[in-house]
Amino acid sequence: MPTKYEELIERVHELDDLNKANALLYWDREVYMPRGGVAERIAQMTTLSSLSHRMSTSDEMGELIEAAAAEIDGAPYDSNEASLIRLLQRNYADARKIPAEYVARSSAISGRTREAWVKARAENDFAHFRPWLEQVIELCQELADYYGYEDEKYDALLDKYELNMKTAEVRAIFDAVKAELVPLREAVDQSRVSLNDSIVHQPYDIDKQKAFARYIAEAVGYDFERGHLGTVVHPFAISFSRNDARITTRWYPDFLNPSLFGALHESGHAMYEQGTHPDLARTPLARGTSLGIHESQSRMMENIVGRSRGFWQAHFPKLQSYFPEALGNSTAEDFYRAINKTQPSFIRVEADELTYNFHIILRFELEQAMLNGDLPAAELPTSWNDKMRELIGITPPNDKEGCLQDVHWSRPGFGYFPTYALGNLYGAQFFETAVSQNPAILDELAQGKTTALLAWLRENIHQHGKKFTPGELVQRVTGRPLDHQAFMRYARAKFSDLYALN
Amino acid sequence: MPTKYEELIERVHELDDLNKANALLYWDREVYMPRGGVAERIAQMTTLSSLSHRMSTSDEMGELIEAAAAEIDGAPYDSNEASLIRLLQRNYADARKIPAEYVARSSAISGRTREAWVKARAENDFAHFRPWLEQVIELCQELADYYGYEDEKYDALLDKYELNMKTAEVRAIFDAVKAELVPLREAVDQSRVSLNDSIVHQPYDIDKQKAFARYIAEAVGYDFERGHLGTVVHPFAISFSRNDARITTRWYPDFLNPSLFGALHESGHAMYEQGTHPDLARTPLARGTSLGIHESQSRMMENIVGRSRGFWQAHFPKLQSYFPEALGNSTAEDFYRAINKTQPSFIRVEADELTYNFHIILRFELEQAMLNGDLPAAELPTSWNDKMRELIGITPPNDKEGCLQDVHWSRPGFGYFPTYALGNLYGAQFFETAVSQNPAILDELAQGKTTALLAWLRENIHQHGKKFTPGELVQRVTGRPLDHQAFMRYARAKFSDLYALN
Repeated sequence: MPTKYEELIERVHELDDLNKANALLYWDREVYMPRGGVAERIAQMTTLSSLSHRMSTSDEMGELIEAAAAEIDGAPYDSNEASLIRLLQRNYADARKIPAEYVARSSAISGRTREAWVKARAENDFAHFRPWLEQVIELCQELADYYGYEDEKYDALLDKYELNMKTAEVRAIFDAVKAELVPLREAVDQSRVSLNDSIVHQPYDIDKQKAFARYIAEAVGYDFERGHLGTVVHPFAISFSRNDARITTRWYPDFLNPSLFGALHESGHAMYEQGTHPDLARTPLARGTSLGIHESQSRMMENIVGRSRGFWQAHFPKLQSYFPEALGNSTAEDFYRAINKTQPSFIRVEADELTYNFHIILRFELEQAMLNGDLPAAELPTSWNDKMRELIGITPPNDKEGCLQDVHWSRPGFGYFPTYALGNLYGAQFFETAVSQNPAILDELAQGKTTALLAWLRENIHQHGKKFTPGELVQRVTGRPLDHQAFMRYARAKFSDLYALN
Repeated sequence: MPTKYEELIERVHELDDLNKANALLYWDREVYMPRGGVAERIAQMTTLSSLSHRMSTSDEMGELIEAAAAEIDGAPYDSNEASLIRLLQRNYADARKIPAEYVARSSAISGRTREAWVKARAENDFAHFRPWLEQVIELCQELADYYGYEDEKYDALLDKYELNMKTAEVRAIFDAVKAELVPLREAVDQSRVSLNDSIVHQPYDIDKQKAFARYIAEAVGYDFERGHLGTVVHPFAISFSRNDARITTRWYPDFLNPSLFGALHESGHAMYEQGTHPDLARTPLARGTSLGIHESQSRMMENIVGRSRGFWQAHFPKLQSYFPEALGNSTAEDFYRAINKTQPSFIRVEADELTYNFHIILRFELEQAMLNGDLPAAELPTSWNDKMRELIGITPPNDKEGCLQDVHWSRPGFGYFPTYALGNLYGAQFFETAVSQNPAILDELAQGKTTALLAWLRENIHQHGKKFTPGELVQRVTGRPLDHQAFMRYARAKFSDLYALN
């Protein structure tokens, strides 16, 4: 006679397998599926989603979770059992708050809104997108009301990406970032130093880019025995188990950065999932803590590691050997400076390490205003451009390079954007702690290696998967809540050196 | 208020989506999955299988099928509705006959038997495999008893691959093949002509083989907008919808045939599923009629089309342009003769078009003897070698090249083998009918084209999917039951010409 907890685990494994199969349907669609197959693929994904939703939100499931919870009552907070029950209870309660009617309606509207967005962006026609954005805002408001909140409406949505984090907390941190980062950005703008990035804008053979992406992903610790590198239009990482965590990237024939830093970024995500503890397998605990914590891992590999001087002093000769024509006459220092050029720009996904956060803070502020009814959809372009001037000092020439650039607002996903910048801040705070606990990490990095860093990340972050909230994890690992200081110390040191500030 | 039939269709779509997701888990495992992921992948596939099994065999499903059947009572036999209900009733009844305990036991034994087979084959050690084969025979016997049969035990198993076909029928056809094909094979052996196939055994660049495989698959009508070519160890075709039917092949650096004829063979399978009628989508009707009929399509493209003189007179210049070093000094006729060299051989998967059927007839006869208890596992090697001498005129030097060569007997799948040879016979009978109804098919083939042939196949075979039994289909299409005559006419004409007989 199995215990209720054992019964529950069996269900959880089944659901996890089903969700992973659905993830594979998605991955395949993006990477290898012939384009003819899209309609049937959407049907397949929809079926697996609703099967999974039905199974995970049934009354029976709710009762099983509670019966199992009673059985393991008293298990330590950080035990796998208690952590799993907490997560299942939260997910169950959340899922039960949303009417099936809303899910179907929201999914239908999102599909059509996405089409409208594609057209509006292509034609630089915000007026075409406006009525759809209005519906998305309403869907977000409705969703926030279903979930409920104590202080601010935005809390209800943010909570789905950064569990238990409050809007006020993020606002305070972002305000602190702004207060210090705007002057730093202005100092960089006014610096007599100007970095030359022409060497990354040259012809780069795509097959060689692919080979080098594999090399550099392995160099930071991504395990190809448990991974795969695919080609896509919009890169992402995805895992079907800790032993099958995949990355994707894209290739430009005359610009090296997207494949190189894309591979490092996605490797950071995938290494996180490769590092979850085996005992969490086939449960929803075998994932990253939150989107923000996940992004901390990708950003750390992309920027703190992948855009560091020491790392390229070690790996540049290899890169030169792949691309002797493009890089034969350059030095590691030339390359280091080229990949760290910072400058105001309109497009978030192309922004450099320093200005990227501004793009996020802007969206975070506009989302709140739209959600609270303070910013009607029609006024978005004006507000967008005002904030661009305030934060980055430039005005988009059109909405295509302004408020129409991202896909995110074609679905009711307010609350997602801040996790990108939070990732930068978490990443810097983790890295600073890691180095303080094991200074050998820096020595190794200067030799192009991440063994000690990865060991630290696995021990302190990866293995725990989704057992803790992001707030709990940051406190456990760094001894204090998230703040802006580690990131600012890192950014100030790096860019003061690069741009000869003082 | 939806009708019962509509309710049923919704369930059927859901089940089909789930099964297709499982098929993708399999495809991905074979083609792109990193090897570290195998344990979790097996768990995922097992979960989806049992979910699907549970849903399709529930009491509720049985009642729904019967309620829907009552609703559509009177629909024409060949309507989609009646055909679907027939198929669902059969599958439901079959599935309910097998105890869950048997399914689990059989799957566990098959897993371990496969391991034992791999080791036994590698070490040429039949004694190691013998006790496992005994268990497989018992599992087959048990399975036959669950399904039930009227005349012979083997009928129960054959029926699962060739619905409604009787063992006696296959035996009569195979005996007729033997009676005519053994003398033809002997005449070929004694012919003064000997064909030289050295040109296909030369270095062939693998990237160019890949490119040419795409070219030739497209040339016979495989649609890459709704397809994909992947690399595997054991080639297969698989579909996730008519708009996503994939092929796989393997590449040898110094032997052209496997990739070339593998691509044609799998294209034949995939074109079948690409040609199923759109109205059958997301139902189990959108598949090939039976394994034998499926094989008729692959064998037709591989052999009747792909090993024909006219086809290569048209495409050989292209092949030469891909491989000027290997083929620059050869003619289309040289190539035609090289790819049609026939000779006794030990290994089924390497056998030529003429002798292939003997390998199947041998297995068909031995399976029956084992199933009926007339042939103990221990005596298999001796019986195998006796039959090889009788049918092909040679004696395997060891069991590795004899009764240990195939994976099939490591699972309770007796009844599967005959479908390979049935495919050759069905294919010849279909092709002969097609040409008699539209002689332009031959003219086109001589120009390397299959447009008319493919149109005929779509109209007469592909679009119907699994609506008819193989017997019904053959009767509808060719006006008579399956026999050996069309194949023998085809083989006699082709090989008499090649080997200058009489």
